[in-house]
Amino acid sequence: MTEQEGKRVADSYLEQAHIVEPEHLNQIQTLFGGQLMSWMDVIAGMVGSRHSGGGATVVAVDELQITTPARLGDTLVYKARLTNAGRTSMEVFIEVEIEGADKNRKRISEAYFLVVALDADGKSTPVPPLIIETEEERELWEAAERRKEQRNKRRGK
Amino acid sequence: MTEQEGKRVADSYLEQAHIVEPEHLNQIQTLFGGQLMSWMDVIAGMVGSRHSGGGATVVAVDELQITTPARLGDTLVYKARLTNAGRTSMEVFIEVEIEGADKNRKRISEAYFLVVALDADGKSTPVPPLIIETEEERELWEAAERRKEQRNKRRGK
Amino acid sequence: MTEQEGKRVADSYLEQAHIVEPEHLNQIQTLFGGQLMSWMDVIAGMVGSRHSGGGATVVAVDELQITTPARLGDTLVYKARLTNAGRTSMEVFIEVEIEGADKNRKRISEAYFLVVALDADGKSTPVPPLIIETEEERELWEAAERRKEQRNKRRGK
Amino acid sequence: MTEQEGKRVADSYLEQAHIVEPEHLNQIQTLFGGQLMSWMDVIAGMVGSRHSGGGATVVAVDELQITTPARLGDTLVYKARLTNAGRTSMEVFIEVEIEGADKNRKRISEAYFLVVALDADGKSTPVPPLIIETEEERELWEAAERRKEQRNKRRGK
Amino acid sequence: MTEQEGKRVADSYLEQAHIVEPEHLNQIQTLFGGQLMSWMDVIAGMVGSRHSGGGATVVAVDELQITTPARLGDTLVYKARLTNAGRTSMEVFIEVEIEGADKNRKRISEAYFLVVALDADGKSTPVPPLIIETEEERELWEAAERRKEQRNKRRGK
Amino acid sequence: MTEQEGKRVADSYLEQAHIVEPEHLNQIQTLFGGQLMSWMDVIAGMVGSRHSGGGATVVAVDELQITTPARLGDTLVYKARLTNAGRTSMEVFIEVEIEGADKNRKRISEAYFLVVALDADGKSTPVPPLIIETEEERELWEAAERRKEQRNKRRGK
Repeated sequence: MTEQEGKRVADSYLEQAHIVEPEHLNQIQTLFGGQLMSWMDVIAGMVGSRHSGGGATVVAVDELQITTPARLGDTLVYKARLTNAGRTSMEVFIEVEIEGADKNRKRISEAYFLVVALDADGKSTPVPPLIIETEEERELWEAAERRKEQRNKRRGK
Repeated sequence: MTEQEGKRVADSYLEQAHIVEPEHLNQIQTLFGGQLMSWMDVIAGMVGSRHSGGGATVVAVDELQITTPARLGDTLVYKARLTNAGRTSMEVFIEVEIEGADKNRKRISEAYFLVVALDADGKSTPVPPLIIETEEERELWEAAERRKEQRNKRRGK
Repeated sequence: MTEQEGKRVADSYLEQAHIVEPEHLNQIQTLFGGQLMSWMDVIAGMVGSRHSGGGATVVAVDELQITTPARLGDTLVYKARLTNAGRTSMEVFIEVEIEGADKNRKRISEAYFLVVALDADGKSTPVPPLIIETEEERELWEAAERRKEQRNKRRGK
Repeated sequence: MTEQEGKRVADSYLEQAHIVEPEHLNQIQTLFGGQLMSWMDVIAGMVGSRHSGGGATVVAVDELQITTPARLGDTLVYKARLTNAGRTSMEVFIEVEIEGADKNRKRISEAYFLVVALDADGKSTPVPPLIIETEEERELWEAAERRKEQRNKRRGK
Repeated sequence: MTEQEGKRVADSYLEQAHIVEPEHLNQIQTLFGGQLMSWMDVIAGMVGSRHSGGGATVVAVDELQITTPARLGDTLVYKARLTNAGRTSMEVFIEVEIEGADKNRKRISEAYFLVVALDADGKSTPVPPLIIETEEERELWEAAERRKEQRNKRRGK
Repeated sequence: MTEQEGKRVADSYLEQAHIVEPEHLNQIQTLFGGQLMSWMDVIAGMVGSRHSGGGATVVAVDELQITTPARLGDTLVYKARLTNAGRTSMEVFIEVEIEGADKNRKRISEAYFLVVALDADGKSTPVPPLIIETEEERELWEAAERRKEQRNKRRGK
């Protein structure tokens, strides 16, 4: 197998907007957590696919926080970027913001999704190296390395 | 406010079964991760409600792993128990197993969901103490305390 | 074909909880009857599968009653048990209760679902005998026999 | 309260077509029973509303049979008519047919749905008398009377 | 290929009723436009299938108007008829009305859907000629011819 | 009422990605047209809301074409921009592309959605002028004016 050419974080960065409709609410009339996570799962897969150039599936989620419940009619903006790429797995950082009428935004949720690249037979497959360019990308990469270590430790026990 | 009477882990323990139907599949014909998490979110809320005696909402998810993809027709059994209860928040440990025809089971996913008890106005409200009885419950409690510390540290930064 | 070993009612008994979310409501803001029946259909199939050890599909429903409409936020507990097993068909009795904050429960619906065991090709296939142990199980068995007779009579006309 | 004017069976008769899409399938790739019943529930309510001139909700289902499983792409025609009207309740007979390319049809399911008329406050409310005109309508009425008796007997026990 | 026998407009005419449930609402509590169009898409396909005797898929929509928003609990009646049939394509005119308690109806939406007949391999396939009988059908046919011309002109640019 | 400040096309431009999952397919295993239109409806509303700074609802759709059916697993990119703004209504042009593994894209659908700005009471409300900057924007504006004329003519008849 020949070395794959590296890709930048910006090459797979994705932004997505969703409106909270009545069918997305839970019984206390705020956004159902499972819906928020479903949208995260889809965007994480899409970012992974953009980087790997093939399929991608979620295998882990860490440090997911919901700090403010979203409400009916809120416009949510999902921003997702790669923080780390290993041999076949990639970590995606997702931030969710409420976009107000004046386009100012308030962070309400964030999470780290670990996705694995899949070939046409559904087997894990190598991904391009991730090119780190900025100081912020460097910090996200290193925090991702620490989460990777913790995941490996948990799996080892 | 008077002290609430403690409740045992078994008092809120919940088991739930789901069959993977075509509408639950993703584009690679395995269980859509967002669906798996939606079922987790609902059962975490129900366990929290059973302990608190009122509403409950998910505010964090940690250490979610999907080790094996579920497939069409699989019967999934969700088992959810409290690991920890603070003043208004509770941590729920969820294990997901595939139940075979001979009723033997294989673990495919697990996660820790942090839920907060809500009163009728949607405000956080105190929950009963959690009574720890077994060695296993003790270990889950202590691991939950370590996650709580990490969450607080992240929020502090 | 050799005789299959019998199974007890408790071997396939299943309990399931659902919360009534906004997407489950009808236009008069009570639980949509089709949703209540969908949950019944799924649990009936799961009980049939547990007894038969394979697939199962619903072929008839009798004496379904909805005595109280469920409302937004209600926790519904579905309890399903076998009442009768013939050569390839099994009857499942389903009770639906609303679980209050104090865990006391109120019956709101019940029904009898007839399910047929299916082999891998989707053809009906023999099921294990059902072992009847208690007086209550005996009574449910006999009432099921009477429904079977009525179904046969209707089919005969 | 003054006497309401009677309505004929034809006044509330309703026919409805549905195509079986992938999202309607169960794990054995036939029409999910809960979906078939959901469509029945909706049409039963619409027939009840047409007769009563207001809201209507399903309170019982009897003698539901599924004789042939529907498959992906099948066009299903639901035909629903009143068989009986009491003071506040109405019984709706529903037949489900698969419509082939040549427009010939094959019956695959049927059921009797009991619906209750509701006023604007969600309370049961009187319905117009049902005018019986044909011999077939007379027979359906009488069979409905027998089911009503059985339901009352069950409730009495 | 031999000439196919013509079919009349009435042979494929279809009427369909839907109730607006909570899950069909958008964030301003009126019927979600995508839901209204989904129901149109399905009925257009069914009318096309009835005329062609096989599959049919939507390839264009023109002059769709929503003049009045539908609300929770409204009964919507969809009426769909062929206006035109070419070699492999057919145009379907859809009107949507709200049906009141007294069965009087108010038009709230209309559209023209162009559908193409598909054979078993998903390729476009010839359809029977459409027999035009009334003056109204003649006018609809001619207006459809003008839309066809405009579509061709747009595609040509 | 004071004059509102103008906004540029780029201020409300929106791009959105969706993956075609099994639940989005129709019975011939291509993307269900109603799903494609539902995603269009949502993005049209979001673009309208960004320009108007408030709510927005779809009132008309014109020249919708689906030139290629999307299939399971396709990544669809929706691109939506304003073409025209009147006193209270705005026209949104939507293009849908399939994004391949190499990020090259193929147009499969397009449409023009007319949306009306709504105030908090659901009444139509004035929108900012649209600032036209490029030659392409100018051409889209003029084509939109012609569609507006046709819509008015149709309404007048």
